[in-house]
Amino acid sequence: METITRTKIVDVLKSEAYGTTVNVKGWVRTRRGSKQVSFIALNDGSTINNVQIVVDVEKLGEEYLKPITTGACISVNGELVKSQGQGQNVEIQATEIQIYGTADPATYPLQKKGHSLEFLREIAHLRPRTNTFGAVFRIRHNMAIAIHKFFHERGFFYFHTPIITASDCEGAGQMFQVTTMNLYDLKKDENGSIVYEDDFFGKQASLTVSGQLEGELAAMSLGAIYTFGPTFRAENSNTPRHLAEFWMIEPEVAFNEIAENMQLAEDFIKYCIQWALDNCMDDIQFLNNMFDKELIERLQFVLKHNFIRLPYTEGVKILEEAVAKGHKFEFPIFWGADLASEHERYLVEEHFKCPVILTDYPKEIKSFYMKQNEDGKTVRAMDVLFPKIGEIIGGSQREEDYEKLARRASEMGVPEKDIWWYMDTRRFGTAPHSGFGLGFERLLLFVTGMTNIRDVIPFPRTPNNAEF
Amino acid sequence: METITRTKIVDVLKSEAYGTTVNVKGWVRTRRGSKQVSFIALNDGSTINNVQIVVDVEKLGEEYLKPITTGACISVNGELVKSQGQGQNVEIQATEIQIYGTADPATYPLQKKGHSLEFLREIAHLRPRTNTFGAVFRIRHNMAIAIHKFFHERGFFYFHTPIITASDCEGAGQMFQVTTMNLYDLKKDENGSIVYEDDFFGKQASLTVSGQLEGELAAMSLGAIYTFGPTFRAENSNTPRHLAEFWMIEPEVAFNEIAENMQLAEDFIKYCIQWALDNCMDDIQFLNNMFDKELIERLQFVLKHNFIRLPYTEGVKILEEAVAKGHKFEFPIFWGADLASEHERYLVEEHFKCPVILTDYPKEIKSFYMKQNEDGKTVRAMDVLFPKIGEIIGGSQREEDYEKLARRASEMGVPEKDIWWYMDTRRFGTAPHSGFGLGFERLLLFVTGMTNIRDVIPFPRTPNNAEF
Repeated sequence: METITRTKIVDVLKSEAYGTTVNVKGWVRTRRGSKQVSFIALNDGSTINNVQIVVDVEKLGEEYLKPITTGACISVNGELVKSQGQGQNVEIQATEIQIYGTADPATYPLQKKGHSLEFLREIAHLRPRTNTFGAVFRIRHNMAIAIHKFFHERGFFYFHTPIITASDCEGAGQMFQVTTMNLYDLKKDENGSIVYEDDFFGKQASLTVSGQLEGELAAMSLGAIYTFGPTFRAENSNTPRHLAEFWMIEPEVAFNEIAENMQLAEDFIKYCIQWALDNCMDDIQFLNNMFDKELIERLQFVLKHNFIRLPYTEGVKILEEAVAKGHKFEFPIFWGADLASEHERYLVEEHFKCPVILTDYPKEIKSFYMKQNEDGKTVRAMDVLFPKIGEIIGGSQREEDYEKLARRASEMGVPEKDIWWYMDTRRFGTAPHSGFGLGFERLLLFVTGMTNIRDVIPFPRTPNNAEF
Repeated sequence: METITRTKIVDVLKSEAYGTTVNVKGWVRTRRGSKQVSFIALNDGSTINNVQIVVDVEKLGEEYLKPITTGACISVNGELVKSQGQGQNVEIQATEIQIYGTADPATYPLQKKGHSLEFLREIAHLRPRTNTFGAVFRIRHNMAIAIHKFFHERGFFYFHTPIITASDCEGAGQMFQVTTMNLYDLKKDENGSIVYEDDFFGKQASLTVSGQLEGELAAMSLGAIYTFGPTFRAENSNTPRHLAEFWMIEPEVAFNEIAENMQLAEDFIKYCIQWALDNCMDDIQFLNNMFDKELIERLQFVLKHNFIRLPYTEGVKILEEAVAKGHKFEFPIFWGADLASEHERYLVEEHFKCPVILTDYPKEIKSFYMKQNEDGKTVRAMDVLFPKIGEIIGGSQREEDYEKLARRASEMGVPEKDIWWYMDTRRFGTAPHSGFGLGFERLLLFVTGMTNIRDVIPFPRTPNNAEF
C-alpha cells in the first residue's frame, strides 16, 4: 500500500481539497451496501463524526472486504470527493484499504445496536469507542484545558498538593489507608496497638480528601494557586453522585475576601461552560439529542444570568415560607439545618430560576477553617448551587486570625499537633484569603447532561469496583 | 485606609504609569534604612522580583513600622515613581501601610540569611516563600501549562487513568496497598489467607505505578491521548532521584510507529524547554546564578541539536570500544546488560555531546508489551537520554499482535486473567501504536538545574517522610 501521510478525520471533514489523495485510519462503525458498492462509516476518535468511505466492491474484492466489520481497524487511501448524500461535505473513494485488526462479530461487544449505559460501564475498557463516551471524554479533556487556561491567564500557579498524607485535617469522613506493611505479620506494641514505624512513611498514612490546607500554604507565598488532582473518599455510597476516586479543582487566593471569591467562582464556571459551547458543540449537540433535550438551553441559561448572592438565613426564610404555603419537603427546614438537595434545588429551580450562591452558613455545619462573622453564629462560607446538580462549588473566606482559628479548631476536635504547619501561615505573615473547591465530575455532569457520575470518568472507582 | 484595587507586583514592575496611586500587597523580604527613610522589599509571589517600597519614617511613625519585619504581610498604598536606584524601573512611595500579619523575628524561620536546601526541606510549608522555591514552583506551573498546550494543540485528549488499581500489570516493583479494612480485625479463610471481600473494592487494591495500559485503551478509541497524574512506587530508595509519589506524563498514540514516537518525544521536550526559556527567564536566570552556572547554556544546547537516534546494539559497541581504549566504568558493559547511568551519560556527555534516543533494546530487559522486532532478540523500545539527568523519557512501540503479546506476557509471568481487558484492544480492531512516559520531576530537574528531586515537588514523599 502506498504511504501517504495520515489526515485525522476531524480535518478531512473540514477539507475542500476535492480530488486529492488522502489517507485516513480508524475504526469501522458500520459497513453497509450492495454487491457493487460498500459504504464504510469510519471514526478515529478525533471527532464524533464519521467519514464515509465509498468502496468499489469489485475493485477491492468481496472476500477482502469481508473482515471489515464493526470494530475493525483499517487504513484507507482514497480520493477526497464532494459528498453525494446529506450530512457531510466530503467522502472518500477508496483506492486501497489495509486491514490492521479485525473484530469478530460473534464476540465483539459493541455491535451497531444501542447499548445501555449500565452495560457499557461493565466494558469501560471499550466504551470510549462509542459515540456517547467519545463525546463525554472529549468534553472532559476540553474542560480540563479550559480550567488550566482560565487560571493561567489570571496569573494563578498550578500547585501539586500531596496525594498521600499523614493527616486527616479536613475530617471529611472515611479515608483509604495506604500501607506497605505485611498484613500477615503486623507488629504491635505491648498494648496491642499496631506499630507503624516499619510502615513506608514511618507512620499511618492515607489518601488525601482535599488539597486545600496545603493549597493555602502555597497561596500565602505564591499569591494565587489552584490544584487539580485526584481526591479520595472511602464512603460506602453507592449513588449516581458519589465516586471513591474523583478529581477536584481547588483555587486559593491570598488577599481575596468572600465577595471576590464569589466573583471568581462565577467567572470560572462561566468560562468553562463558554469554552464547552465554543469548542465541543458537535459532542454537546449529540448528547443533547440523545440524552437531554434541554442541555444546550441550560448551558446557555447559566451564561446569561448573574448568579444570585443570598445569605443562608434568607434562604431558610424563603424555604420556610414555601413550607407555609404548602410546599412539601422530605427533610425539615429550620435555621441551623444543613440544606438537603431538595432545598437547594427549590431555591435554584423554583424560586430564583437562576444559579444561587448561598453564603454565611451557621458555623456548626461548616469546617473549622472558615472565617467567623461578627455575629458569632455564622461563617463566611459560600456554596454555588446549580440547576439539576445542586451544590457544584463549595468554598469560603478562611479565618486568618491565629487565635480565632486555634479556638475553633480545638472546639471542633482538630488536634493542633496535626496542623502546626497550617497554623504557621497565621503565625507568620497572615492575610485575608479565600478559596473554593469544584468537583470536576460534578462540572462534567452539568456540561454533558449525563446523570450518573460513573459515566463522566473513564474508570469509576466505587464500592466493590476497581476494574481495569 | 483608602481602598484601591490591588496590582500584582509582576505588573507594577512593568508599569510606566509614574505618578499614579497604586496598591500592592505582599510579604516583606527585607526592611532596611535610616531614621528618616525605610526601604521595604516586598514580594507577592507573582514574580521573583521584589518591588521597593520607600517609606517616610516620620510620616508613618517609627513605632507603627516596627512590626514590619521579614515575613510580615502588608498592604501598601502609594505613588508609583521612577526608581532612583539600579535594578528596577519603578518603586512605590508609600502613603499608607496596613499590616495584615506580623512574623516574630525570634521565631520566624526564614530570616534574611541564606538557608540550606536540607533545612528548607524540613519547613516545606514555608519554603515557597523563598526565592529559590518560588522560582522552582513557578517553573513547575509553567511546565505543566506547556505540557497541556503542546498536546492540546496537536489534538491529543487529556485522559485520566485510575489512581487506585486492582492489577499490578506493569510489575514495576513494590506497590502501596490501599485498604479500608480494620487491621485489628482482618478476616481470614480456613487456609489463613486474608479475605478481601469486605475491603472497599471487594479485592486487594493498590496505587498505580503507570497509567500506560489504560492509556492504550483510550488511544485505541480516541486516537491520541496523554495522561498527567500522580504515580507511586513503594521502593525503599532514599536517593536524590527517587520519590514515592511523583507525577508522570504518558502520551499514547494510535497509528504511530517507533520513528514517529521518537519525533513526538523530541518535539515535546523541546517545546517544554522553549516554553521555559520564553516564559520563566527571570526564575531560570536566578537559578542559573545561584546553583548552576551552565543551566541556561544547557537548555539552549538541547534546543539547538537534533537528538541522535542510536540502536542499543551500536551503543554497546561504542561503550565497549571506550572500555578497550581504557575508559573505566563501575558496572560491566556487554550486549544484554541494562545500561547504568554512567553508560548513558558517557554516550550523551562524552561521545555524542548531544541528547541520544537509544532504541531496540534486548527484550529480556524490557516489558512484555513492547513490539518484538523480527530479529527475535530486541524490542522497539526507546529511551531518551539527557545530559546530567540520564534517562528522561522511556517508551516504545507496543506489540499490536494478539498472539505475540499473549506469548510474551505468559513468558514474563503476567497472568492473562489480569489483563483480559488490555488484550481486548488486540482482539478487537488492533492497530500499530506507540507511547512513552516522562517523569515530570525529571523534566523539572533538567529545567531548574536543581539536583535533588525533593526540591522540585512541593511536598516530597519518601521513605519515612509524609509531612504536611
